[in-house]
Amino acid sequence: MDIEILEGIYDANEKVARENYTLFRGSGVLAMNLMASPGAGKTSLIAHTLELLKGRRKVGVIEGDIASSVDAEKLKTYDIPVIQINTGGICHLDATMIQQAIAQMDLDALDLLIIENVGNLVCPAEFKLGESLRAMILSVAEGHDKPLKYPLMFSDSDVLVVNKTDLIGMGDFDMAELRDTVTRMNPDIIIFEVSCRTGEGLSAWVDWLDARIGEFKEG
Amino acid sequence: MDIEILEGIYDANEKVARENYTLFRGSGVLAMNLMASPGAGKTSLIAHTLELLKGRRKVGVIEGDIASSVDAEKLKTYDIPVIQINTGGICHLDATMIQQAIAQMDLDALDLLIIENVGNLVCPAEFKLGESLRAMILSVAEGHDKPLKYPLMFSDSDVLVVNKTDLIGMGDFDMAELRDTVTRMNPDIIIFEVSCRTGEGLSAWVDWLDARIGEFKEG
Repeated sequence: MDIEILEGIYDANEKVARENYTLFRGSGVLAMNLMASPGAGKTSLIAHTLELLKGRRKVGVIEGDIASSVDAEKLKTYDIPVIQINTGGICHLDATMIQQAIAQMDLDALDLLIIENVGNLVCPAEFKLGESLRAMILSVAEGHDKPLKYPLMFSDSDVLVVNKTDLIGMGDFDMAELRDTVTRMNPDIIIFEVSCRTGEGLSAWVDWLDARIGEFKEG
Repeated sequence: MDIEILEGIYDANEKVARENYTLFRGSGVLAMNLMASPGAGKTSLIAHTLELLKGRRKVGVIEGDIASSVDAEKLKTYDIPVIQINTGGICHLDATMIQQAIAQMDLDALDLLIIENVGNLVCPAEFKLGESLRAMILSVAEGHDKPLKYPLMFSDSDVLVVNKTDLIGMGDFDMAELRDTVTRMNPDIIIFEVSCRTGEGLSAWVDWLDARIGEFKEG
């Protein structure tokens, strides 16, 4: 009975997500849904990505949070469109929230729309937003065993950015084991290792993203 | 409409939570609901707590995870009752899951039941389990701005354990600012600073918990 209620919610969300996708496709804007635990470094990765794409691609950001506009404030220095969604207690973004946000944006003026989801390794993976790229971050501080415990997001993402590599050696984090586990669950996933603190690995990530934007616009 | 459905779910959960509470009260077992993001150190804190309470209190553990029994395996070395709940995709424990788990436990043989919730800083806060103590962990790696972004859990918890203090200085984490923000939201909250890696601060946490168990049994 509960499950049927949930199925209804997912179906309705899926329908709006398809409408969003059609809008993004029509405007030639690659929408990226960026998911992670709280504190994994979503806003930091976005800030670095904006910095490195400056002059190359026109980027907009939707910031999803339960409450507060801390993240949107941080991105104010980049002269780009930023919309803050406060979900008011809901633990994930959904397609309708995105539909309302993009109604206030000039999509034709963008190449990339980064959607920062609510910090949560579970629920955001269940709600498609209309994105063409599902990206997630895992921070080294969270531990290499997380794919086993939160399988859906790792299975469904196109790309995994492992952040805070400067903390490797401070604990028992095992990158080889992480890569092995994730690749067994999701053989097509692309993995980047970065440190938003030291800057290591960020240019490889941004070059890849830039190439994906180019491919999207072509077809 | 959606909201009404949710209210119904919360009411039903509340009713079972009260039944669980009555069982815990009758058996003199303090139930602690332990909540945190993925990778904040819930299982590590439990392991240290078991170690330090050995010979002082009889402890049982319920491990909540979306999938896997990684955490329950880790606790196998402590000769105590451990029950693993796999929620099968659900992002929090609820009172009915706990009701089913405790039906398999000898509550009269316990002083403390630690319930490790699913790693998630949002949804677990919305579902009472019948606990007398709501505890949460924030790791230094997550950042001091998290209370603003995930207010409910910080507002509703009795105790906050700040873990991974050995990482202070590696980033821009500000303990004074964290304490200030949390105390403004929740003036009665007790805050401990610990490092499960170095052991710092753990005996103060466990001594406090031990005293709470004593008070619960008396009253």
